[in-house]
Amino acid sequence: MSHRKQKRVEPPDAGSVPRAVVNRLSLYLRELQHLVADGTHTISSGGLGERLNFTDAQVRKDLAYFGHFGYPGIGYRADELIGAIRKILGTDRVWPVAMIGIGNLGRALLGYKGFSRQGFEIVAAFDTDPTKVGIVVEGIQVRDIATLADDVRQQHIRLGMIAVPATAAQAVADLLVGAGIDGIVNFAPVTIALPPHVSQLGVDLAIELEQISFDVVNRLRTR
Amino acid sequence: MSHRKQKRVEPPDAGSVPRAVVNRLSLYLRELQHLVADGTHTISSGGLGERLNFTDAQVRKDLAYFGHFGYPGIGYRADELIGAIRKILGTDRVWPVAMIGIGNLGRALLGYKGFSRQGFEIVAAFDTDPTKVGIVVEGIQVRDIATLADDVRQQHIRLGMIAVPATAAQAVADLLVGAGIDGIVNFAPVTIALPPHVSQLGVDLAIELEQISFDVVNRLRTR
Repeated sequence: MSHRKQKRVEPPDAGSVPRAVVNRLSLYLRELQHLVADGTHTISSGGLGERLNFTDAQVRKDLAYFGHFGYPGIGYRADELIGAIRKILGTDRVWPVAMIGIGNLGRALLGYKGFSRQGFEIVAAFDTDPTKVGIVVEGIQVRDIATLADDVRQQHIRLGMIAVPATAAQAVADLLVGAGIDGIVNFAPVTIALPPHVSQLGVDLAIELEQISFDVVNRLRTR
Repeated sequence: MSHRKQKRVEPPDAGSVPRAVVNRLSLYLRELQHLVADGTHTISSGGLGERLNFTDAQVRKDLAYFGHFGYPGIGYRADELIGAIRKILGTDRVWPVAMIGIGNLGRALLGYKGFSRQGFEIVAAFDTDPTKVGIVVEGIQVRDIATLADDVRQQHIRLGMIAVPATAAQAVADLLVGAGIDGIVNFAPVTIALPPHVSQLGVDLAIELEQISFDVVNRLRTR
């Protein structure tokens, strides 16, 4: 049994890491978290890959972007790799998040347990609708969007989630940028323009359905 | 100006196409749809890539899995490439979809305009809660889940979206499988077991936040 010291996790050059690799890091992390919850504490690259339909070579290649994590004859130590991936993804800390737009989607996102489990705490919720301002949703009191800039600064909020109608998304994004936010996840079905120093990710829920229809169509064709 | 006939779109071997490529097809499709809406009808691989932060080589390599689409001196004809990608993704038809679970997330998904725009029509909604059965949400009357199997068959529903609590997800998935569904998009924060002939995609909304935190952390480090 080897006790070689694990190499330090080097901060990767984000520009050199393909987006797909970062996406798979999230999948590895989630699978490792399930394993630990089930009482498994070591796993091989092949074992981890098999649970996600990836080859062992894919798993090793993806992780090699960030360091050397396996132990000969053991594989990966799940807790250790979880810690390393969280550090790489930046989720080894708690991120205070602001939610803007408290319609059905905003309410669903406020109630989504998976965020806090991964280190994202929605600490403030905003809307423009006077009938919504003041109500408490999932333990968070909805505030008037007029206070957004002050609240973002006071609560050290770094990330924002936008779930407003398409027509309001750009104005909300501009408010968040003005408040000094670092990243925005946009659920509004519209592309927003942001300065280059603010990260953004647009979530297009139809993409999930397109991926499924691709799978279904292609399996049917090859039957 | 060339008028070479475009090669037929060959049905790809789904197993040989990386998931990331299929995902990018959705992004290309959406960008092309925006272009056409804005009155642009041809675009180069470099132009298309630039709008999405991909290289022109990436765009060409991805599309080469499925055929030859560009025209020398013109680039891609947007309408033609839209048609080809929809055919590849299987969205050149309308897919009737069943939505199960009419909580906040279910309601948000029922109201999400992006689905029908891409060929996915939610034609039936189900819940177990007697206070929800019978109500009309976004023009669709919620039915008792007891009628799911019959309704799926009668309405030729092929895809299901699950937005129920984690504890109920597997039972709902089993019902859908029993009704003969081909694919499931699972929004419940739990992994479900399905027979190999049913496609599934789990949507983990925390992944979007992890991707953003990676971007933010890495940009901050390299400042």
